[in-house]
Amino acid sequence: MEYSLGELARRLGLTLAGDPAARVARIAPLAAAGPGDLCFYADRKYREALAATRAGAVILAPANQALSPAPTLVGDNPYLAYAHAGWLLHPPTAAPQGRHPSAVVDETARVDPSAWIGPCAVVEAEAEIGPGAFIGPGSLVGARCRVGAEARLVARVTLCPGVRIGQRALLQPGCVIGRDGFGFARDGRRWFRMPQLGSVEIGDDVEIGANSCVDRGALEDTVIAAGAKIDNLIQIGHNCRIGENTAMAACSGISGSTRIGNDCTIGGAVGMAGHLEIGDNVHFTGMAMVTRSLPEPGVYSSGIPAMPNAEWRKNAARFRHLDELTRRVKHLEAVLATLSAVPPATAEAPAAASPPSTPSPEREPD
Amino acid sequence: MEYSLGELARRLGLTLAGDPAARVARIAPLAAAGPGDLCFYADRKYREALAATRAGAVILAPANQALSPAPTLVGDNPYLAYAHAGWLLHPPTAAPQGRHPSAVVDETARVDPSAWIGPCAVVEAEAEIGPGAFIGPGSLVGARCRVGAEARLVARVTLCPGVRIGQRALLQPGCVIGRDGFGFARDGRRWFRMPQLGSVEIGDDVEIGANSCVDRGALEDTVIAAGAKIDNLIQIGHNCRIGENTAMAACSGISGSTRIGNDCTIGGAVGMAGHLEIGDNVHFTGMAMVTRSLPEPGVYSSGIPAMPNAEWRKNAARFRHLDELTRRVKHLEAVLATLSAVPPATAEAPAAASPPSTPSPEREPD
Amino acid sequence: MEYSLGELARRLGLTLAGDPAARVARIAPLAAAGPGDLCFYADRKYREALAATRAGAVILAPANQALSPAPTLVGDNPYLAYAHAGWLLHPPTAAPQGRHPSAVVDETARVDPSAWIGPCAVVEAEAEIGPGAFIGPGSLVGARCRVGAEARLVARVTLCPGVRIGQRALLQPGCVIGRDGFGFARDGRRWFRMPQLGSVEIGDDVEIGANSCVDRGALEDTVIAAGAKIDNLIQIGHNCRIGENTAMAACSGISGSTRIGNDCTIGGAVGMAGHLEIGDNVHFTGMAMVTRSLPEPGVYSSGIPAMPNAEWRKNAARFRHLDELTRRVKHLEAVLATLSAVPPATAEAPAAASPPSTPSPEREPD
Repeated sequence: MEYSLGELARRLGLTLAGDPAARVARIAPLAAAGPGDLCFYADRKYREALAATRAGAVILAPANQALSPAPTLVGDNPYLAYAHAGWLLHPPTAAPQGRHPSAVVDETARVDPSAWIGPCAVVEAEAEIGPGAFIGPGSLVGARCRVGAEARLVARVTLCPGVRIGQRALLQPGCVIGRDGFGFARDGRRWFRMPQLGSVEIGDDVEIGANSCVDRGALEDTVIAAGAKIDNLIQIGHNCRIGENTAMAACSGISGSTRIGNDCTIGGAVGMAGHLEIGDNVHFTGMAMVTRSLPEPGVYSSGIPAMPNAEWRKNAARFRHLDELTRRVKHLEAVLATLSAVPPATAEAPAAASPPSTPSPEREPD
Repeated sequence: MEYSLGELARRLGLTLAGDPAARVARIAPLAAAGPGDLCFYADRKYREALAATRAGAVILAPANQALSPAPTLVGDNPYLAYAHAGWLLHPPTAAPQGRHPSAVVDETARVDPSAWIGPCAVVEAEAEIGPGAFIGPGSLVGARCRVGAEARLVARVTLCPGVRIGQRALLQPGCVIGRDGFGFARDGRRWFRMPQLGSVEIGDDVEIGANSCVDRGALEDTVIAAGAKIDNLIQIGHNCRIGENTAMAACSGISGSTRIGNDCTIGGAVGMAGHLEIGDNVHFTGMAMVTRSLPEPGVYSSGIPAMPNAEWRKNAARFRHLDELTRRVKHLEAVLATLSAVPPATAEAPAAASPPSTPSPEREPD
Repeated sequence: MEYSLGELARRLGLTLAGDPAARVARIAPLAAAGPGDLCFYADRKYREALAATRAGAVILAPANQALSPAPTLVGDNPYLAYAHAGWLLHPPTAAPQGRHPSAVVDETARVDPSAWIGPCAVVEAEAEIGPGAFIGPGSLVGARCRVGAEARLVARVTLCPGVRIGQRALLQPGCVIGRDGFGFARDGRRWFRMPQLGSVEIGDDVEIGANSCVDRGALEDTVIAAGAKIDNLIQIGHNCRIGENTAMAACSGISGSTRIGNDCTIGGAVGMAGHLEIGDNVHFTGMAMVTRSLPEPGVYSSGIPAMPNAEWRKNAARFRHLDELTRRVKHLEAVLATLSAVPPATAEAPAAASPPSTPSPEREPD
């Protein structure tokens, strides 16, 4: 889709420096861009690419405007403007309506005529599919599920019976919503399954990633609140609550009944124990191991960054004796105190040099 | 489904204190329960909710009976009784029989007439489906597979050719049983695939979670023994053996040829190296890193619980020098010994105060 | 399939010691093998089984030939020869051609007549399927995808629109290729999705494991180079590049824009931060946490191997004070220096005894 720079500036609320009649038709990287391309600049790593770009225009922040040889579109949240520009130039293909002949739709299901039921999709009894919803190929909408307006099940999504999906929710391929939670009572040596009588509520504008799983509650519902973004291969246990606009990166697992607040960011492969309370605006770096409730905002981390194997083997072996080592130091201090007046170690001692870099809990443009 | 308290007491082997003719119809949480609801109490966290409940009856242990204002059903394993009560009041819907017209069933497959083959399910050549088995929508039963009586493939399950599923096994959506194991021979720089000639045996009453994977063996079979419970997003490598009634929480991965004993519990996101021998009654807390065989029963753990990022950065940087630090302490001890007669650090020194809490390896009611 | 030992020796380039007319028909383990079976020996753990074997022949290295009571097939890469022998004795069943009546193939798709489109598979508009390709049951080939000659989508594979699959690529059940990458711009508290305009390129001879996910690029493509082997339940973020013949074990996650070189091996459950550069011939042991670029070849590790819980609780509690402990030691050294001339700790101090064993980064026969 083609736009003039003037039209883009108007629609995106940006300040144009350049010919308003000039036109761009697509998004491109600075280095590859030509006159018909629109680019984005923020990271100084690309400073030289910007200086050499042949792009039709560049979206950037006021502070960087002087660096661009090309026409500029300037605003205070250039990355967001760039996102909107991307959708204008590359609009999603319109979804079809109705149903594919190979779809299997129970006669008691209520499907809005403006929704689409794709090939080999299955919609069970008494399910409700809202206006403009998209049920992709091979997806299952279980009995009594409710799928909100314009929600999108991309492909091969499984909704177990009775789950509720909010408006504009985006469910990626292979995700499973509403499996019976993993709860058992012990019967001697054997495990006896607890009935899982709750359901799952997925809020408006939530995204669930590919092959991620959200289990249904034991009695009350598992809840993913509005605007939360869940990446691929994530496990959310039964009775969890994920707060509004909380974002979780791939491969994380949240054990049952843990509640996470609003506006949190959770790095990749984070693990959380069950029955925890995590507050609002709590951020975890990748691979953090969360074993306690953390009600206070802040950035929390754990894990040992990789090092050469030989070095690691020695240090890891010593870790097994860290408690003993600490007691030996305490003992040395006591003995030394008997030999001399030992002034206490100053709290103002310099911090450790060059701490290991850590994955940022904030999502950056890739 | 509605029951009188007398009938419930009789069926569940509980002692009733209350009117045997009073009736309950559903399970509910203590705080929300009304006269027609049945509740459960064990965790003192809910003590006030119990004191204030309007429930029709509460299942609990003898020690807690006095705390309940409502009629009580008392037994020594109240959680198990509660599970049975849940199934009585909320029985599963009866499975249909026969096959959906959209199912694709090879003419050489042997399907018991009491089994169900759901919409868009595929059953390949010479597969055997036992009495009362449920093959959910979009599932694949590969050639020569055997599915035991009353086994349930909930939806979109993949059984690769030749795998065997025990009676009453429960396979959750998206799980993949019998992928060729990840084994390769090196051909210069390139990897050449080893044929994987074994299969997978899933025992009676086993559960496999959503999107979990169990690979087929290279020569002999990968085995999940009777009663084992495998949660979501778990990887079981080829030639592994998981013992009877062993339970694994989500996101764990077991490398090839590792054998785990009976009655083990494995917390979430545990990783195990290959070719290990883990004994019976071994328990791992969440995110444990298992690199050695552990034949003895016990609870094993590893990992560093999350802490404020600034604190973590300093400590993690020091870890890289833990071996050197230990040597420095040893050196100090030697030097000090030359200056004075140093008595050895007492083994009876007090243990570290306030250890971090850890995810319980035992499954608790959520 | 049956072969004479002479024929096998000729085809595999091995040296036979035994009757060239003797025949074998299948692969078997040393302990179970009979006269018609072919075995492999390399690991001295099986030395007694070899000494007692009744196998028809054993493939092994020259150094081990004397250990075998059975006829031998000897070569310098016996494991590779064994793999080839396995395929000769147990050839894969020939794939069918054409399409199953239940398959849904868009009329604008170009499907080679020698390809197979299985039951309930869906091929969307303008997709291209090459000669001998296999599109397994329930798979989705999105619009404009290209699937190379003899590529195999085993079952229930999802290819999102526009992805390209190389020749002989093997895609295991449930994998998802080309989900929109996890990229968002912040709009106040809310997340606004970035359009993901790149695609995914899967090279020739690549394998992608069951339920693994490879996200499409934001602007340029995510690339899995020729010969790379990706195990189950792995996440590859958008804009990543995985080099040629790099092998990744299950449950690993690679954050967006990280580039991994050629001939690397990555153990299970490894996590990598985004925007890293990993060189060629870099090897990570299982559960390594990778937070920095590592351009140099070598073996890198992290993590704390599991230990008895009581021991771990004490040591983990001490870790929170490791920085402080280090400063206390430094202080002791300073004080002691004032009391005596302290010679420096010798760099030649003995290394830590018995380091924990670690998962081998090299793939071994299981």
